[in-house]
Amino acid sequence: MDNQRTLTKYLLSFIEGLKQGGIKRAVISSGSRSTPLSLLVNRDPSIQSYIDIDERSAGFFALGLVKATGEPVALICTSGSAAANYFPAICEAEATNQPLIVLTTDRPAELQGVGAPQAMNQQYLYGSHVKLSVELALPEDNSTMLDYSSWEGFSMVSRAQVIPKGPVHINIPLREPLLPDLNLPRPAKAPTKVLPGERVTDLSSLLPLFQQNGLIIVGEERTPQEAQQLLTLAAKLRWPIIGDPLTNLATVQSKSQNYLHQADLIFQGHLSTPQVVLRFGRLPVTKPVTQWLAKQHVSTILVEEGHQFKDQLHRSNYLLDMTVNEFKKCFDKLVFTPTSPAWLLRWQRRQGLAETILQTNKDLQKFNHSGVVNQLLSHLHDQELFVANSNAIRLVDRLTLSSAQNVRVYGNRGVNGIDGLNSTMAGIVAASGHPLTLLIGDLAFFHDLTGLEMIRRYDLPVTIILLNNNGGGIFSFLAQSSLPSTDFATVFKTPQDLDYEYVAKLYGFDYHRPTKYSEFNSLLNQPGHHIIEVSDSQDCPVTIWHQLVNAYQQKSSEIND
Amino acid sequence: MDNQRTLTKYLLSFIEGLKQGGIKRAVISSGSRSTPLSLLVNRDPSIQSYIDIDERSAGFFALGLVKATGEPVALICTSGSAAANYFPAICEAEATNQPLIVLTTDRPAELQGVGAPQAMNQQYLYGSHVKLSVELALPEDNSTMLDYSSWEGFSMVSRAQVIPKGPVHINIPLREPLLPDLNLPRPAKAPTKVLPGERVTDLSSLLPLFQQNGLIIVGEERTPQEAQQLLTLAAKLRWPIIGDPLTNLATVQSKSQNYLHQADLIFQGHLSTPQVVLRFGRLPVTKPVTQWLAKQHVSTILVEEGHQFKDQLHRSNYLLDMTVNEFKKCFDKLVFTPTSPAWLLRWQRRQGLAETILQTNKDLQKFNHSGVVNQLLSHLHDQELFVANSNAIRLVDRLTLSSAQNVRVYGNRGVNGIDGLNSTMAGIVAASGHPLTLLIGDLAFFHDLTGLEMIRRYDLPVTIILLNNNGGGIFSFLAQSSLPSTDFATVFKTPQDLDYEYVAKLYGFDYHRPTKYSEFNSLLNQPGHHIIEVSDSQDCPVTIWHQLVNAYQQKSSEIND
Repeated sequence: MDNQRTLTKYLLSFIEGLKQGGIKRAVISSGSRSTPLSLLVNRDPSIQSYIDIDERSAGFFALGLVKATGEPVALICTSGSAAANYFPAICEAEATNQPLIVLTTDRPAELQGVGAPQAMNQQYLYGSHVKLSVELALPEDNSTMLDYSSWEGFSMVSRAQVIPKGPVHINIPLREPLLPDLNLPRPAKAPTKVLPGERVTDLSSLLPLFQQNGLIIVGEERTPQEAQQLLTLAAKLRWPIIGDPLTNLATVQSKSQNYLHQADLIFQGHLSTPQVVLRFGRLPVTKPVTQWLAKQHVSTILVEEGHQFKDQLHRSNYLLDMTVNEFKKCFDKLVFTPTSPAWLLRWQRRQGLAETILQTNKDLQKFNHSGVVNQLLSHLHDQELFVANSNAIRLVDRLTLSSAQNVRVYGNRGVNGIDGLNSTMAGIVAASGHPLTLLIGDLAFFHDLTGLEMIRRYDLPVTIILLNNNGGGIFSFLAQSSLPSTDFATVFKTPQDLDYEYVAKLYGFDYHRPTKYSEFNSLLNQPGHHIIEVSDSQDCPVTIWHQLVNAYQQKSSEIND
Repeated sequence: MDNQRTLTKYLLSFIEGLKQGGIKRAVISSGSRSTPLSLLVNRDPSIQSYIDIDERSAGFFALGLVKATGEPVALICTSGSAAANYFPAICEAEATNQPLIVLTTDRPAELQGVGAPQAMNQQYLYGSHVKLSVELALPEDNSTMLDYSSWEGFSMVSRAQVIPKGPVHINIPLREPLLPDLNLPRPAKAPTKVLPGERVTDLSSLLPLFQQNGLIIVGEERTPQEAQQLLTLAAKLRWPIIGDPLTNLATVQSKSQNYLHQADLIFQGHLSTPQVVLRFGRLPVTKPVTQWLAKQHVSTILVEEGHQFKDQLHRSNYLLDMTVNEFKKCFDKLVFTPTSPAWLLRWQRRQGLAETILQTNKDLQKFNHSGVVNQLLSHLHDQELFVANSNAIRLVDRLTLSSAQNVRVYGNRGVNGIDGLNSTMAGIVAASGHPLTLLIGDLAFFHDLTGLEMIRRYDLPVTIILLNNNGGGIFSFLAQSSLPSTDFATVFKTPQDLDYEYVAKLYGFDYHRPTKYSEFNSLLNQPGHHIIEVSDSQDCPVTIWHQLVNAYQQKSSEIND
């Protein structure tokens, strides 16, 4: 019975997650679709289960359990109107900030909307009266999905307890057969997850971790002040620190001993495994970091504001609801012995090798997109830099070596869109008053042509470096490039064949098309509105990047730690 | 042009609220329906306005302004698809926690769903991608609605900045004529609203307020620990403190010098006005307190967890995102000189008078609902008490004099339902293990008869005092009682004529129907499951309450402060 085994393992992982989040009590209303969840919870010795036949009563009974203990309580029911009976108790829980964890079981998608018995749309069933509503994916038996179901249970129970507390809803579609395998063992105990109840003001319980070999990974846009705090933190810990251009780690300080510029190369070579990973926010744009991290099982501390549980790997053990500033303040109170300098040295050797490889690559000296990006930061001064999606930010992340002074980097990496970049950049300049350089590909630039009007209207000091490869070319780096040309060229190469000089004229920009570095560099850091167009093929950056990765992988195997 | 004046005054108040919340910049896309808002914002010297024709660009431009400043920015557009163009920027703002304040103007309800031009349903337009979505009421020119529009502007901008930050949406329906009166002055500057950005750890800026004449008002269910902390706080400040039975202020300590048991009487007499009101959470059930407070304009501090802005009077000047425990800890670090004892003495005199009046009322000595409630707490010991909605909790709030030892009080006052009370109470007993007394009217009891099954199944120690007046009778206290009998008796008196002895038998409760106090009192604090039914008319408690209020009002006018 493979299905039975999959269902059981998946739900057991989910239940471990519920328990890690704080579930000690459950109220079960019997039913068919909820059978496996009800049985497994009822058999769990560390959950006190109550059976309450009427779901309306069950909802309020669970509310009473929460009131008396202050702890979250799970509600379990079958599909159909049963779930609707929880609604009055959910409304009361919402208004009094009680962490009710509502688990409704459901028929799978293929039985929805086709008249199957006891089936109705249960997604977002309680509208805005729960803090969060999610639907669990159908059971699968592999480590990613078992980690996921456990994390989903853990994070939903935890988030219900984040102030202001309140009810949350998880809809759980299940396929028949519904009887679980009651002989399967519960999963090996996962590392303890820690969710501090009240505001964190003391980090001393994490002290032992800070004395081990660690790695700091920073994501999301960070202010220069935050970036400086993070570099200081890394220096104190003697840990390497990585983060993409938007973190401003690469640009806030001319030379940090801890920051690894070339993480995208380094994480494609052989690495020593850290004992601790200290993360701030989401993961950086650097894909090899994510891929490498997915294979590690090390203690992970995740620091982010407002408990948003931004861990796409479902791995963090310690979740701290703090700003960088708050973390730094608490950290500075600790007294500890940092790890041996040998740990950082290993990483510095790798960074050194990567730098040498970039500096000696001949194609990077030529006037092309990769070369322009490689040299850009060292020629900018007292500028802000907006790095567009999708190729531009990857090129900057991969090819930037040294840091410029007083360059603050911006981007739009929330949902990584190529819409609205010209407008966002214009808004930044309007508010900051600083001259800004925009690095953008032609496809993203095309999307927001109307956004250029604000630069003209408010006379904003903007230089646009337009990396024109006639269609973007992000897909040349990806699996789509292996498609037959009839598919790839039509759907993914998206050539526009537009002459952007007309755009420059329309919006009153000076227009330049340099062909060598002396020309190009003299156009940077100038007042007024400029479009500097640089042409390249879609393939060229791909070829250069493969050269660099191959060279690094060969040489790094010779590094002897 | 009365309409023009109303519209203008209302929107000016709203704009003041936006500014108090932190708006310094706005991005306006021109349009017809948005005319008054656009003009008034654009003319405001303390808001920097930008005009951006394309709403998609405008959304991203505003996002850029937020990125560069870290401050909230308002977006203003007309009705129809214009508003939909903000969606991409809202999605990016959501993912990167940027406080975009989206103000969409709209046609009023009478032009919705009837084919009027440029009209579509704009409520909850951005789904779950904004933190909050509200619709502003149509403009009205009176102090309540001007306070409301200002508060709504203030609170939405503030809540967008609460961590995790994010976009919020206000839909604003407006009627023609749409040209505002540009000669009307901006409203007099309202008292400064304070919303601390990061976590509050220091109260010293409020020190001057703590040295004045103040009043503490506590709402919501509070644990005995919190209640004790609040009473200690009141003693240190030398301030009176009020709060309904659920706050546990009345029961946690046998005699507090600061707690006013009879707030419901005292606030119907003459009072001295405090200089400061310190509120914890929502307002208590005591209606005269709300009515009195609505007429005051004093500095108000609101302490609540998670910035939920629970101020139905739209008055608070200082909003502190803290638990009672966190507040108490910060408060205890302050050194200050409390106000003169004369201030508290005035309130103690009133409490003394109210007590005398209750003690000398003859009808309260008789065996009826009011009498039973008046004496109940002094006869309970080592019990928990669940007080049901709606009459039961009001009777306890009004008629309880002294405090019992070790009685913890519970209720369901989130949305004040009379559904699910038996079940909630059963859940509390199941988790706490303590014997519990439930005080409940027959209508609420009837609603949740199925909930009694859990008491039988899990053998929970529960005594139910059933205040049976054959239909509830809450409406006998309210304006509905003045209706013709054909309406009132049919719709609001709701007599059930049920013999609850059968209910007792069904669920295995011992059933009692005492007729005098000696009988009644001997039934309290007993093991097992009991239903003690006490009969009364619907009118009797009303009559007694009117006697008490009249007596208090007469005597209190003689108090000489």
